[in-house]
Amino acid sequence: MKARVEVSFRDGVLDPEAQAIGRALASLGFGDVRGVRRTKVIELDLATTDRATAESELKAMCEQLLANPVIETYRISLTE
Amino acid sequence: MKARVEVSFRDGVLDPEAQAIGRALASLGFGDVRGVRRTKVIELDLATTDRATAESELKAMCEQLLANPVIETYRISLTE
Repeated sequence: MKARVEVSFRDGVLDPEAQAIGRALASLGFGDVRGVRRTKVIELDLATTDRATAESELKAMCEQLLANPVIETYRISLTE
Repeated sequence: MKARVEVSFRDGVLDPEAQAIGRALASLGFGDVRGVRRTKVIELDLATTDRATAESELKAMCEQLLANPVIETYRISLTE
């Protein structure tokens, strides 16, 4: 089973790297950029074929490693 | 106009951070993970409303900053 985990900063949380990208684009002459946001996407190949097992495992992986629940939110999607 | 840039490593290019995630998941007891891949997603708010302008600007942004053409590929999508 293939899993896709999208991890983004919570609204209102400062993303220094996104800000740095915005400044760098401006310094390269791209004056058209009004906002920059970043999302981390982690794709996982899971041995299990059971959807419920995959979902609970992924939730635990996110809570323990892939996302920082204090400043990040995550979204999980599964494909057979 | 909103733009979404997805940047991934080219096939065959080693992604040390993805490997580290894989090892960390295994050490946390998640033995079900067979592969890990990462994608960087950068969302941009552009002032322009002209699609062709946005596309050419985004291509230049990717070539100059957002992606390393030697080891990464990128995919651009636009929404009004």
